[in-house]
Amino acid sequence: MAAGTPHDGATAEQQLNDLARQLRVDSVRAAAAAGSGHPTSSLSAADLMAVLLARHFRYDFDRPDHPGNDRFILSKGHASPLLYAAYKAAGVIDDEELLTFRARGSRLEGHPTPRRLPWVEVATGSLGQGLPVGVGMALSGKRLDRIPYRVWVLCGDSELAEGSVWEAAEHAAYEQLDNLTALVDVNRLGQRGPTRHGWDLDAYARRFAAFGWHVVSVDGHDTADVDRALREARDTAGRPTVVLARTLKGKGVASAEDREGLHGKPLPDADAAVEELGGTGDLRVRVPAPPAARVLRATRSGHLELPRYEKGSEVATRDAYGQALAALGTARGDVVALDGEVGDSTRAEFFAKDHPERFFECYIAEQQMVAAAVGLARRGWVPYASSFAAFLTRAHDFVRMAAVSGADLNLVGSHAGVAIGQDGPSQMGLEDLAMFRAVHGSTVLYPCDAPQTARLVAAMADLDGVRYLRTSRGAAPVLYGPDEEFPVGGSKVLRSSGADRLTVVAAGVTVHEALAAAGLLDREGIPVRVIDLYSVKPVDRATLREAAETTGCLLTVEDHRPEGGIGDAVVDAFSDGMPVPRLARLAVTGMPGSASPAEQLHAAGVDAEAIAAAVRLLVEHVVR
Amino acid sequence: MAAGTPHDGATAEQQLNDLARQLRVDSVRAAAAAGSGHPTSSLSAADLMAVLLARHFRYDFDRPDHPGNDRFILSKGHASPLLYAAYKAAGVIDDEELLTFRARGSRLEGHPTPRRLPWVEVATGSLGQGLPVGVGMALSGKRLDRIPYRVWVLCGDSELAEGSVWEAAEHAAYEQLDNLTALVDVNRLGQRGPTRHGWDLDAYARRFAAFGWHVVSVDGHDTADVDRALREARDTAGRPTVVLARTLKGKGVASAEDREGLHGKPLPDADAAVEELGGTGDLRVRVPAPPAARVLRATRSGHLELPRYEKGSEVATRDAYGQALAALGTARGDVVALDGEVGDSTRAEFFAKDHPERFFECYIAEQQMVAAAVGLARRGWVPYASSFAAFLTRAHDFVRMAAVSGADLNLVGSHAGVAIGQDGPSQMGLEDLAMFRAVHGSTVLYPCDAPQTARLVAAMADLDGVRYLRTSRGAAPVLYGPDEEFPVGGSKVLRSSGADRLTVVAAGVTVHEALAAAGLLDREGIPVRVIDLYSVKPVDRATLREAAETTGCLLTVEDHRPEGGIGDAVVDAFSDGMPVPRLARLAVTGMPGSASPAEQLHAAGVDAEAIAAAVRLLVEHVVR
Repeated sequence: MAAGTPHDGATAEQQLNDLARQLRVDSVRAAAAAGSGHPTSSLSAADLMAVLLARHFRYDFDRPDHPGNDRFILSKGHASPLLYAAYKAAGVIDDEELLTFRARGSRLEGHPTPRRLPWVEVATGSLGQGLPVGVGMALSGKRLDRIPYRVWVLCGDSELAEGSVWEAAEHAAYEQLDNLTALVDVNRLGQRGPTRHGWDLDAYARRFAAFGWHVVSVDGHDTADVDRALREARDTAGRPTVVLARTLKGKGVASAEDREGLHGKPLPDADAAVEELGGTGDLRVRVPAPPAARVLRATRSGHLELPRYEKGSEVATRDAYGQALAALGTARGDVVALDGEVGDSTRAEFFAKDHPERFFECYIAEQQMVAAAVGLARRGWVPYASSFAAFLTRAHDFVRMAAVSGADLNLVGSHAGVAIGQDGPSQMGLEDLAMFRAVHGSTVLYPCDAPQTARLVAAMADLDGVRYLRTSRGAAPVLYGPDEEFPVGGSKVLRSSGADRLTVVAAGVTVHEALAAAGLLDREGIPVRVIDLYSVKPVDRATLREAAETTGCLLTVEDHRPEGGIGDAVVDAFSDGMPVPRLARLAVTGMPGSASPAEQLHAAGVDAEAIAAAVRLLVEHVVR
Repeated sequence: MAAGTPHDGATAEQQLNDLARQLRVDSVRAAAAAGSGHPTSSLSAADLMAVLLARHFRYDFDRPDHPGNDRFILSKGHASPLLYAAYKAAGVIDDEELLTFRARGSRLEGHPTPRRLPWVEVATGSLGQGLPVGVGMALSGKRLDRIPYRVWVLCGDSELAEGSVWEAAEHAAYEQLDNLTALVDVNRLGQRGPTRHGWDLDAYARRFAAFGWHVVSVDGHDTADVDRALREARDTAGRPTVVLARTLKGKGVASAEDREGLHGKPLPDADAAVEELGGTGDLRVRVPAPPAARVLRATRSGHLELPRYEKGSEVATRDAYGQALAALGTARGDVVALDGEVGDSTRAEFFAKDHPERFFECYIAEQQMVAAAVGLARRGWVPYASSFAAFLTRAHDFVRMAAVSGADLNLVGSHAGVAIGQDGPSQMGLEDLAMFRAVHGSTVLYPCDAPQTARLVAAMADLDGVRYLRTSRGAAPVLYGPDEEFPVGGSKVLRSSGADRLTVVAAGVTVHEALAAAGLLDREGIPVRVIDLYSVKPVDRATLREAAETTGCLLTVEDHRPEGGIGDAVVDAFSDGMPVPRLARLAVTGMPGSASPAEQLHAAGVDAEAIAAAVRLLVEHVVR
């Protein structure tokens, strides 16, 4: 390991211990320089990190995109000082940069993110996410790329309380991911005090074993013991391994060891702690690069033949989603699909049928589904993950963190709104637009017919960040021709005249209601403009502004809660201090029960009749 | 059991089997009448339901609020036909109502909700939520009310893939909830096809046993076997019991038994199925009422003495939250608190110190925390559940379903926005306002100082629905006197003059920035109005409209994403077709890194300097 250091004559174990000591010293120093951070959580895991880095990790730091690189995820992201100390030991950051920890502009953030550091696989800091994402990366190596890299995830013990960890445990064992190792730093202390299980390693061992993992329990400060465990993990076939390491929080600094009340704080006397740990050092670890590896992908790449639909025929947008995704999968070998055990409803099953080797059944575990998609995306795949729109709320925190990672992925929520009918409110996506609009850098699309859906499914693949597509359960008339284009950020003016009294802005199912209302109103001598706002974010400012100037009033109508959806999206076009048109909105304000789709739209006041009534009211009493 | 039926001479086992058969028949008939629904998922669990209802359940159907009643939760909510068939057998709905299943206006919704049926404990239909909520109800009986009712939760096997189930398993075992029984209907088939573990009951047994549960495996169609298992559950002390029942989906109808592709569909030939099952019946079950029980609560109720703060002193709103909640707990014996292992940060620890018997540490499991709060709320408690605002996104689906249940609960998110400083984006609540605004019937509060926080904490207790309070990490100057009132739905005009050029609308941390900006601008001869919009939902239409009419332009400034927060909330006041003022907004558009709180506010463009700059630009170039 340590090349060109004063320790050339030391035994291998001494060298490991010296490295661990340096990682501790640098963790303490980084937090002291920042005046904040989590040194005690770093000290407990330093021996695990030293052994992994010096003995088992294969990584080309000059080529973070080397396909053969092992992957390391610091699931306990608050122990970032330890990660950065390891980067220093690996020679990729220097001591000066180490001490910029948590300063404005530094790459060394309080919790690591790949946006700034090329060696960070995924943003962590929301606990219980590292292992789920690691499963996605291990799946990529095992089932897709077939490259023998390993995925190492360092977890805290507190975070094992998150259900997402057990979704990941289930997924990893089921997929026999023997290229995945979880190292759990069982330091017995959470943020506020002791964990449920303290140092009862057996409690954790029973749980992981029950889920089908190979389990090794070790003294986390005995580097030889840890080394044996990691070797055993590498030698274990057919299932993932968890290394449960009994550790002391604050290990190495007597005044901090196993003490409550020191979480997330620099040590009171950092200089003394550094001295107690043996003083600063500059050991270097030579991490071996992995063997050459090639990504063999896109073997069936070709021209994209999207499905075609006849104008006037009736097709559900969820059907178009499945058909377009299957076609996209044929054209592009880098497209993969995941679903939460509802592929017969979301129509992800169409992709699964055509491309079984690139389909991942995630069962009813939406957090794990999104996490796996993030892991696959970070390994270069273009994932489409689907469930009912309502159930994607289950994965909100994972979506939020995907944006922090800057991950590029496609999420598709079916069964939007009250229009699903009898199944009732538990199954209705009524908050999804609000959730996805608020995600940093997101794109939110909501098509109203099959050709539009197909085009948007294809366009999503090449956007940045989190992209969301909302589909509907019921069949809807095909409005557009097969060659119509739908640029992201655009909209379609479906009806307009020089005499329009106001503009109805709709998307998805309400486009059809708006058109029906416009027909009714036209016969009454009230011409209205109708805009299909298929791109909810970004929104088509130019068209909305033009409509505002010409017609003076925008009436939005949406199968969604009044907050955060299309009504709010429209205001995005008018938030720069320029004049704002009159605004009115129709949305789902009550709590639906069971009823037919048409009855639901009517009861919610977002059907053609309600739109026509609102327009009449506005035109007669308000707008003029 | 079956009183006054033609089966008086039958053996007890025959009677049970006859009851199960009737439940099957009525499940099939209900779905057939509706033309939709999940009969096959009902058929598999009919014997479990029959045994529970006839032999073990204690419930006074005339008094659903009887404190001694057992609690039954249909976690697999799609099996609602079975539940309604059981209600018919219990004599509380008649055959005519049974056949209104899923019709508009019927109480018998596709998935059961307590909004319409008094015997339903909690809305289900989003899988993996019934057991977590059941834990909250069992906690109420065991730790608070000390009433020996039992909580019975009927789960599907598919939903065991949800991590939330394992959060619940952990919580229940840790709290030794021997009054809780989970019945798992292992029918091996999910919606789309086989589950991961099929009929491998041992796979589930290993998992539950590892989490500390007592496990009994049975043939789910052998009523004697099921009866023994439920008896064993009742006799088991110190831990919860899971009954794993091997069943056939579609049991009793040969053409449907164990067949894929029949999930969520009425049987093709319902009449033949009814005949095959033995024809319709009208057996009645006499469910025994529980023994008398009294809720002993509010033993220390008294006058509420909220903490008082000196104007000009600096206090974090999270501190005020903890102090006010502790005071509220002293005044009201029905207030309970839960926290996700961050009570030292959210300051829930103040309540925990004063009222340990009413504090529930939920560890890092936000879904389970919210679910337990729902369970406690449904048993009459007034729960306050807290974590970082960012991490409440983890429980989005539970919050959504709480609203479907009509549950009354308080959620408190600390560490809002970029103002937290160095910890970085993973810890920053930047999407929470969007999430909570979109929840049906929610209240969203965001105080800027300590007295305002204290008042709002007290006011929340008596509101309906989901109430959210957003608190901040850093200390903020006390602006208001101790007797100032803050009605929900109100706002405070903190600065105004007849010459105001525009209005700055702020809340929380940005109130202080807005005031500083107004001071700067005033010295430049640009008077502006400042509104403290502490009630984000409902929003103070009157004050906003008055400001709009007087000043012509509203500039919102928020430590939140531009979507779904204060900027969008303000538009709620102008969505009725009346004239809209000019609008401009400052919000967090970029992805923050680490930096000090002041640096973060500056970098995000929501500090006093940014506000002043925006006002100057608007006043000079846009508004006039």
